[in-house]
Amino acid sequence: MSADRADLSRLSINQETLKQWSLPELAEGCAAAGIGAVGLWRAPVQEYGVERAAKLMRDAGLTVTSLCRGGFFTAPDEAERAAALADNRTAIDEAATLGTDTLVLVSGGLPPGSRDLAGARERIADALAVLGPYAEERGVRLAIEPLHPMFASDRCVVSTLGQALDLAERFPATQVGVVVDTYHIWWDDQAPAQIVRAGAGGRIHSFQVADWITPLPAGVLLGRGQLGDGSIDMRGFRQQVDATGFAGPIEVEIFNEALWARDGGEALTEVAERYAAHVLG
Amino acid sequence: MSADRADLSRLSINQETLKQWSLPELAEGCAAAGIGAVGLWRAPVQEYGVERAAKLMRDAGLTVTSLCRGGFFTAPDEAERAAALADNRTAIDEAATLGTDTLVLVSGGLPPGSRDLAGARERIADALAVLGPYAEERGVRLAIEPLHPMFASDRCVVSTLGQALDLAERFPATQVGVVVDTYHIWWDDQAPAQIVRAGAGGRIHSFQVADWITPLPAGVLLGRGQLGDGSIDMRGFRQQVDATGFAGPIEVEIFNEALWARDGGEALTEVAERYAAHVLG
Repeated sequence: MSADRADLSRLSINQETLKQWSLPELAEGCAAAGIGAVGLWRAPVQEYGVERAAKLMRDAGLTVTSLCRGGFFTAPDEAERAAALADNRTAIDEAATLGTDTLVLVSGGLPPGSRDLAGARERIADALAVLGPYAEERGVRLAIEPLHPMFASDRCVVSTLGQALDLAERFPATQVGVVVDTYHIWWDDQAPAQIVRAGAGGRIHSFQVADWITPLPAGVLLGRGQLGDGSIDMRGFRQQVDATGFAGPIEVEIFNEALWARDGGEALTEVAERYAAHVLG
Repeated sequence: MSADRADLSRLSINQETLKQWSLPELAEGCAAAGIGAVGLWRAPVQEYGVERAAKLMRDAGLTVTSLCRGGFFTAPDEAERAAALADNRTAIDEAATLGTDTLVLVSGGLPPGSRDLAGARERIADALAVLGPYAEERGVRLAIEPLHPMFASDRCVVSTLGQALDLAERFPATQVGVVVDTYHIWWDDQAPAQIVRAGAGGRIHSFQVADWITPLPAGVLLGRGQLGDGSIDMRGFRQQVDATGFAGPIEVEIFNEALWARDGGEALTEVAERYAAHVLG
């Protein structure tokens, strides 16, 4: 299927997918390609200026579907915890300024020297209890992203959609939900049932897609695959998410150095084509 | 705790932990260190000669606790499937010759171009149905090893202990069980309940230990950590496994190039010390 003829109305481009582009390039490139939505990251937005980035996107007619990322809640030290809460309040404010209702959370790994996964998960719940009402007052929802279990020690002790929902469901759905990201959950035979559970509870705050390819690079962070290049039944996951009644944006988030090395416009065209062929399908 | 004074009666050294050693070096080194058991791998055993390896271990007073590995059952092609079954029958025969009752299975990843995890898992069940009786007749049990989800596409579509048990429980416990390996399951909040389930059904055919460290190397296969160097509550897992009534060997299986670069005897001494300090605890 050619991207020209495909329905791109739900496609959102996460900015990290096209890291080679500045924010103005992203805004211009997406608008030119007929894409109406983007997901943004805090660091480049802060560098550009939050208000200024919000205006840039508005002027280009772009919706901001999510802001990445808050989180990192697992430090046991009180000063570190207070700093994390303060930083997350800022992230919530930034999300509100950008006009997105979704702040993606990467919850944090094990503290140095710790082997206490359950304790780390409880500290995430403690932080959500503090931040949930603050977010809701600003029209922002906290979206817990379960990360692939290979990130459990250093980035995120929430490794499955089931775990993310166990945490989220302690709070109102208007405050805390989850991210369904194919890259992180594709291997899990419990994922289909958990997608149903998430949808039924109104907890799917973000749906992200990337493909799984091997071999993984050292450090594994930048090993995500272009849609269609890997092992994930992307269309199947999209159908599962849609079947819950979710009709929100589908955000493409690929961290891949080979994609970043290419011309941004070419990369975007390919992403749109792959989205049409493998996600809409 | 010094390894001299520790109870090493349950310690088994998987041969890949000391890849720098030949089979005679392994037999001599373990016997000299007061270690009574080893886990072996097919390729070096075949190279040395199966009968000859069996005699070598017997003469050194060593028990063989497992043979790695059978499996790779997921190819849809009939000729490939027939070849895999034949190879696994040979592996079962080798295990019997070595006097071990445990053949560890790495079940296989997705076939090239496939995205059908459920189909691949069913082909594993089909193979177990054929091989289980053959193994039982020879006093060998097939032990499904769930591999960390980062191996789901290229090595093993069985990613959790729960999945492994779902497969194993279709067959008698005398034919098919599971491997509990801390490295693969440590992140999973369902693991404790699944260890109880595995123990209650007499399905824990092997208990293996290695630690989780980051950053992962490229390809991720050789990233396992020395006991105590990483994130896993090794003692906690040992206690959980013991609590089910399991009193079998505890096999140390660490794939780590830095460990292989060292003098084998030194590496073994360190493994025994770490086992005493972190697994027995």
